[in-house]
Amino acid sequence: MTGAATTPAASATATGWPDAGLWQWYEERRRASTSTVTQVPLDELRGWRTDPVTGDLGHRSGQFFTVTGLDVRGDGGPVPGWQQPIISQPEIGLLGLLVRRRAGLECLVQAKMEPGNVNGVQISPTVQATRSNYTRVHGGTGTPYLEHFVRPVRGSVVADVLQSEQGSWFLGKRNRNMVVEAVGPVPEQENFRWITLRDLQLLMGLDNVVNMDTRTVLACLAAVLRPSTRPTGDAFADLVARGFSPTGGAVERDVDVLSWLTALRSRRPLVARRIGLATVRGWHRDRHAIDHDAGRHFSIIGVDVRTAVREVPGWSQPLLRPRGRGVVAFLARPIGGVLHLLARACVQPGLRDVPELGPTVLCRPENYAHLPAAHRPPFLDAVLCAPPERIRYDCVLSEEGGRFHHAENRYLVVEADERVPVRPPEDFRWVTPRQLAMLLAHSHYVTVEGRSLLAALYSLAGSCP
Amino acid sequence: MTGAATTPAASATATGWPDAGLWQWYEERRRASTSTVTQVPLDELRGWRTDPVTGDLGHRSGQFFTVTGLDVRGDGGPVPGWQQPIISQPEIGLLGLLVRRRAGLECLVQAKMEPGNVNGVQISPTVQATRSNYTRVHGGTGTPYLEHFVRPVRGSVVADVLQSEQGSWFLGKRNRNMVVEAVGPVPEQENFRWITLRDLQLLMGLDNVVNMDTRTVLACLAAVLRPSTRPTGDAFADLVARGFSPTGGAVERDVDVLSWLTALRSRRPLVARRIGLATVRGWHRDRHAIDHDAGRHFSIIGVDVRTAVREVPGWSQPLLRPRGRGVVAFLARPIGGVLHLLARACVQPGLRDVPELGPTVLCRPENYAHLPAAHRPPFLDAVLCAPPERIRYDCVLSEEGGRFHHAENRYLVVEADERVPVRPPEDFRWVTPRQLAMLLAHSHYVTVEGRSLLAALYSLAGSCP
Repeated sequence: MTGAATTPAASATATGWPDAGLWQWYEERRRASTSTVTQVPLDELRGWRTDPVTGDLGHRSGQFFTVTGLDVRGDGGPVPGWQQPIISQPEIGLLGLLVRRRAGLECLVQAKMEPGNVNGVQISPTVQATRSNYTRVHGGTGTPYLEHFVRPVRGSVVADVLQSEQGSWFLGKRNRNMVVEAVGPVPEQENFRWITLRDLQLLMGLDNVVNMDTRTVLACLAAVLRPSTRPTGDAFADLVARGFSPTGGAVERDVDVLSWLTALRSRRPLVARRIGLATVRGWHRDRHAIDHDAGRHFSIIGVDVRTAVREVPGWSQPLLRPRGRGVVAFLARPIGGVLHLLARACVQPGLRDVPELGPTVLCRPENYAHLPAAHRPPFLDAVLCAPPERIRYDCVLSEEGGRFHHAENRYLVVEADERVPVRPPEDFRWVTPRQLAMLLAHSHYVTVEGRSLLAALYSLAGSCP
Repeated sequence: MTGAATTPAASATATGWPDAGLWQWYEERRRASTSTVTQVPLDELRGWRTDPVTGDLGHRSGQFFTVTGLDVRGDGGPVPGWQQPIISQPEIGLLGLLVRRRAGLECLVQAKMEPGNVNGVQISPTVQATRSNYTRVHGGTGTPYLEHFVRPVRGSVVADVLQSEQGSWFLGKRNRNMVVEAVGPVPEQENFRWITLRDLQLLMGLDNVVNMDTRTVLACLAAVLRPSTRPTGDAFADLVARGFSPTGGAVERDVDVLSWLTALRSRRPLVARRIGLATVRGWHRDRHAIDHDAGRHFSIIGVDVRTAVREVPGWSQPLLRPRGRGVVAFLARPIGGVLHLLARACVQPGLRDVPELGPTVLCRPENYAHLPAAHRPPFLDAVLCAPPERIRYDCVLSEEGGRFHHAENRYLVVEADERVPVRPPEDFRWVTPRQLAMLLAHSHYVTVEGRSLLAALYSLAGSCP
């Protein structure tokens, strides 16, 4: 599906897209979003200042977020130490999806402009707001539909859990992922639309349409609303659906998955300590950016935003701009007739609890270009060299455009061949989609990339709940 | 049961204690534990030093733990700020209980001396060791039975989860709580004994016999092995057993309990920052102790230990000595025929995720003696003034004697009368024992005091799994 991005006609025909008006609406919203995003020097970001002592780049209000530094040491293990810039955003934002039951489940989505999006507007959940946003630190208009989440009607909450975000870019950040069932009629405001869960899942098959915040909330929904296991005639779709079913026999007992993670956590593989941005070794700041000395990993840049479609007409902010496109992939295979995913224990310094479970592969291959082949991430070649018939999902999806600039990852689900071992290396485990979904009722188990891929997999099941 | 402490004869008769040899063994172990614990000046603790810059009191090896300072601020809410000493112990210890199935479940327990115990020796789990201990930083003998937990046989893990400890005294501390089923015969080494789960539960009815580490592991076991709901003829015991049963109808759906906690966590009620011990306001250090200026809360003292029954013949260490005896209580009541406990969202600065669920009442009444009645903790009087027939559990239990000096709490389960509302204040919720137990498969949900009381409640169920 990579490359088919913005014209879904083929995909729509192939899958029997039921709502022709949806794509027109989305395209209209994109055209109506007359926004300009201009890179500006870091010292000229309106409302932001560089702390004279630490060098940290923060908002004058003390709210929103701060670009600071992190010192990371391995705890005697094989992981060496390093320093890096990182985004500190201690306040907890809200990612809220309002749903309702009609013939099937419907979701109230938003066409939302974010300055870091490659294509301006993407599909976002009903509410996507930092606490500073919705308590109106910026003095803008109110957040639509917020009341459904802040004061939910008794019995209407479907899922509500704090989840981590990118642990290499954020320091301990987490957002509240919430799904609430609407009580009574909820009209569509401008830029909002009720769409079926099936349509939202079909949009997941297109490049850069469904944003990260929608994907993580969808994953949390998958923990509650399992796909139907009614046979669809598509063998892989049926395998996926059964993989989410509570009856599916996993090779590892649930307690053994938890025990493996507990053992790894007890070893404290990383010790991370916040330091001033000015003191970070291996990085340098010029007028326009903070860059890695060897040009790897990411840059911090500044942008000025003008728009008619957000709570305020314009603002400035820093953005983290990753180098190159990442690869995020689950290897999958049936074991004993049940679909399993090869999860990796993901060690990132900004996670509050290290490790969390993540995809089999998560990397930016460019960062390994200077290293010998033996240092390439495990299973990267099994993913990149898979024959087309084994590639079950392949889309370019963006990470959060409110903090990251054009942060694209190629997300894949690849059926493993027999060279991938059933007994994996120590920091990998074969788990079922159900086991990952079950853990999503709780915090700090599955990384945001793992959740995105789980939402993608959820969309591959033949029939919706 | 308070006061009946060390002579269990009455209790044993009343409940039909099946193993007369158990008490003799425990008494023998206590007598054999010829240890002396002497208070010594803080500057004369062998192996410990005060950092000349921060004033922190730490071990020269950098291991074990450090007494440091904490600055706590409320986040604009009603909680005012304060500073305090706190114990930092980033490494994760192991609390491991080995079990086996005979006629009923049996547990391998240890009679263990800790310097802060009021009575020297208490019943401890099979393994109770910091990482420094079992990796032998102190150069002592090996930890018996450790191999069952470090390399468990496939399929033998019953429970394995990191759990928090006292959030007012420890900074982010957690221990690995692990239950493993023994494979093959496991002989009793000196100071160890296989006892039935029922006997261990009976010991829970005695003052200062079952230590904190055993109680928290028992609580995690209760999440997996539910008591039998076969009627016993004791109406309250049957009510407790049914409260642990998965069929029990709770007034709050599981997702609503999680959602309530998620909402509270999103508000960030406390912001805690580590500071140097020397800069802590409101506390002072003299030769023998670090004390609160008004004599409240706790002191930090130093002790010198001589013993023949531990891995090394002697050592020195700081201990935290609380002022006065605490009260830890759950109010309980049947709602719709199902037992519910009034859990409180417990806000403590040292918890990694604030709040966790804790008992209805957790306080040291002495700390409130100088305040007007309106500032007394909610429901404290409902607990302390309950008529005897409503008091279902009443024991003095100690917190961890390896860090705390004579830290006794009076633990109670009290049946609430009609003055306690079914619709509780915002930071309280009625939950079933099953709901608390279910959360114990995961980290950071239930405080250590909540877990102790849950283990006590588990012991009140008529019949064992």
